Amino acid sequence: MTQFDKRNISMMMDFYEMTMANGYFANSREPQRVAFDVFYRQNPDKGGYAIFAGLEQIVEYAENLHFDDEDVAYFRAQHLFSEDFLEYLRTFRFGGDIYAFPEGTIMYPNEPVITVAAPLIDAQLIETAILAQINHQSLIATKTSRIVRAAQGRAVSDFGARRAHNIDAAVYGARAAYIGGASGTATVLAGQQFGIPVSGTMAHSWVMYFKDEFEAFKRYAEVYPDNVVLLVDTYDVLHSGVPNAIRVAKEVLEPMGRRLKGVRLDSGDLAYLSKNVRRMLDDAGLTDCKIVVSNSLDEYTITSILNQGGRIDSFGVGERLITAKSDPVFGAVYKIAAVEEDGAFVPRIKVSETVEKITNPGLKQVYRIYGESGQAVADLITGDGEEVDLSAPYRYVDPEKPWKNRFFENCTARKLQELVVKDGRRVQQPKTLDEIRAYVKRQLETEIWAEEQRFENPHRHYLDMSPKYYELKMNLLYETRTDNSR
Amino acid sequence: MTQFDKRNISMMMDFYEMTMANGYFANSREPQRVAFDVFYRQNPDKGGYAIFAGLEQIVEYAENLHFDDEDVAYFRAQHLFSEDFLEYLRTFRFGGDIYAFPEGTIMYPNEPVITVAAPLIDAQLIETAILAQINHQSLIATKTSRIVRAAQGRAVSDFGARRAHNIDAAVYGARAAYIGGASGTATVLAGQQFGIPVSGTMAHSWVMYFKDEFEAFKRYAEVYPDNVVLLVDTYDVLHSGVPNAIRVAKEVLEPMGRRLKGVRLDSGDLAYLSKNVRRMLDDAGLTDCKIVVSNSLDEYTITSILNQGGRIDSFGVGERLITAKSDPVFGAVYKIAAVEEDGAFVPRIKVSETVEKITNPGLKQVYRIYGESGQAVADLITGDGEEVDLSAPYRYVDPEKPWKNRFFENCTARKLQELVVKDGRRVQQPKTLDEIRAYVKRQLETEIWAEEQRFENPHRHYLDMSPKYYELKMNLLYETRTDNSR
Repeated sequence: MTQFDKRNISMMMDFYEMTMANGYFANSREPQRVAFDVFYRQNPDKGGYAIFAGLEQIVEYAENLHFDDEDVAYFRAQHLFSEDFLEYLRTFRFGGDIYAFPEGTIMYPNEPVITVAAPLIDAQLIETAILAQINHQSLIATKTSRIVRAAQGRAVSDFGARRAHNIDAAVYGARAAYIGGASGTATVLAGQQFGIPVSGTMAHSWVMYFKDEFEAFKRYAEVYPDNVVLLVDTYDVLHSGVPNAIRVAKEVLEPMGRRLKGVRLDSGDLAYLSKNVRRMLDDAGLTDCKIVVSNSLDEYTITSILNQGGRIDSFGVGERLITAKSDPVFGAVYKIAAVEEDGAFVPRIKVSETVEKITNPGLKQVYRIYGESGQAVADLITGDGEEVDLSAPYRYVDPEKPWKNRFFENCTARKLQELVVKDGRRVQQPKTLDEIRAYVKRQLETEIWAEEQRFENPHRHYLDMSPKYYELKMNLLYETRTDNSR
Repeated sequence: MTQFDKRNISMMMDFYEMTMANGYFANSREPQRVAFDVFYRQNPDKGGYAIFAGLEQIVEYAENLHFDDEDVAYFRAQHLFSEDFLEYLRTFRFGGDIYAFPEGTIMYPNEPVITVAAPLIDAQLIETAILAQINHQSLIATKTSRIVRAAQGRAVSDFGARRAHNIDAAVYGARAAYIGGASGTATVLAGQQFGIPVSGTMAHSWVMYFKDEFEAFKRYAEVYPDNVVLLVDTYDVLHSGVPNAIRVAKEVLEPMGRRLKGVRLDSGDLAYLSKNVRRMLDDAGLTDCKIVVSNSLDEYTITSILNQGGRIDSFGVGERLITAKSDPVFGAVYKIAAVEEDGAFVPRIKVSETVEKITNPGLKQVYRIYGESGQAVADLITGDGEEVDLSAPYRYVDPEKPWKNRFFENCTARKLQELVVKDGRRVQQPKTLDEIRAYVKRQLETEIWAEEQRFENPHRHYLDMSPKYYELKMNLLYETRTDNSR
């Protein structure tokens, strides 16, 4: 099988999903339902928030998951699974429900961004695919959002394909980057597949092929007179590249009635060079010529360049965006929260030596609480079906300071989880990528405190609980302690 | 288009490959040939070597690259390309030659691990796909090799799928990890696609589903009596998990004549816990029961755990392997080295403000030089077609100390680049993954100095030049200086 053949995405799972599934099947053929929560524990880069991305691909996976004959044969050859189970796999389709935050929602640690309520085996089998997708796309969307913030309104374009962790990382990474605020990508496959604006002009090889830099620029200008962005650092930016670019503007483009659109710097001291390049262009009357820079950029280098007065109009960001280099692991987990017994979901809790790793048990809801100004002041976890009435002051518990008596006053609430898959079928129209991107932008501009968006020591978003839910969790913890812990 | 549809891998390219191709097409329809080199500049993690991986996927790409009607339509819709060029794309197939190190070769900075000698457009269009594949797989193979070294003979298995940068990163990452020395993977799709051994038993959800830990272990043992590896850290390793595992060994497995194969720890202080678990198992007569650990491991944590006397038999390594967390960017580049003029390849050089970024020009060969003991003492770059006669002392130039008079004596040489694609068609049988893996192992055990493999301040492998090649490079540099630089 080559990369050009059709992939079998259904097999994107850890082997233990299958050993467990076969084990559950052997132990009970009743379609007992369970609930799993997807949540994460820490924002990347010690940031104040993350962006929930990748949901559309999860819905696709849940709708299409199935096992072909060759898959069943592969499992049979492992000599671990019963023939009854292998037969069951042949007609298996995911039959559960998936609740999730809308894609693009700003999210915070320890809240269930996805809840899968499904027959036990169904819920188990989709774990790996859900986590890989959410972890990857949320990672890149969040990283991009930070870079876009650093760029202070200048365009940021994804140039990362060649350093991405293979093809999917380039393509779904470009999708996530666009959600996080990138204005486009250089990756053709991502442009084609998702309608993301693509761009690109020339590499150093173009300049080196023609040997003479002016000749190379001239040839490019003749082919693309309306889109001339010249890479000026192949030999020497200030003594060769920019003078040759200016000469092309004057001798080639102006006689055609065209303007030089931009120059690109891909190496060197970008703060220093960009200021000098700007001056040279302005002195030549090319005040409308943009300066594009690339070369190992991220939110920190961009901040530094702009703090030094770098004169840059747009950024091409590659390896540090597409790998989220400074913190390349997004750690969402998939934890069982409840098991159906006699028709009702009974909460399960995972205790741990470390307090932060204790899970939030049971079926639940997450509300985003907004103050009068429309800014999100906290998120609130309640039990499923619990009423949240904010028409009067509403008492909540801060689980880190449960002894305090605190109230939401004059607030409104938005329930964050929505039903996206019902009995294995999509129940919402897919959102367009532009809708998701606009939703991210709107939240960051109008709902999310600037204090949560800063890079250094950001404000930590509160995750509060209803008194009833807090009591449920505490009771379960005490019970578990008696049973199992020291 | 969903993830379940057939992907169009041909479109895995940066948009500028296409703007340049259309530009070259407009400037000349002669099939002028060029040579591009793939090389990298720094070993990941400040290590002493890297492993060349991903070649098989590149050969596949080169053989299959083509543009469908919908691709041509996509490019047309960009309103940048000529109809002649779009027509040319419809029947385009890669028609060049690819020379490469055998997959799995230990490689070092600044040597051409791949050389593409091809018609200009052909060579340009495959840049992004080559780089993304080599960068990703070499990164993960190299990282895994370091982790395997730290494990000192203990098995290392890839558990990374859920934290991989999407599906390809999990699947081709598992392939690369296997090349780098992992003994297997948990990723089913990688096992199915590449025949890598897969393994997996249970998650915490199995234990939590049954609520009672002993019950959960017992049920598992009944389904898989020959493969019982129990996850013992859901509640409390020493007070609950291990005692319950021992009870299952005694009460469930022994009556069946079976043994408890292993226990797995996925959290907590693995050095401390493993020693206590080992003692408890031994005291119970379960001296053959293995201890498997997982949880944010890498070469550094594994070294630390083993230095503390941790009693561990095998490691499941996830996020830090599959993302190469400590250094997630492998920076191979693709630089033009020569352009055919009047039937002969004329060298091109890329100068730079930073000495390390100056390229090695022209067509060339790389030899690995072995001393009498069979250890690789240096690599040597020569001009293409230059004879390397080691039957007598051979003078070479160390480009960092060119004034020294140095000789290889009593050495042998192996030419590292082989022709793998000729006129667009594969000319070698694909190697099996096990052959590639064994080749890596053999080199690290018998050819590559231990001093290059240590983590701290490793020996830097010499990259020497033939006197003639060194002279060529210097002459080109001086010429270029006169033309373009300050």
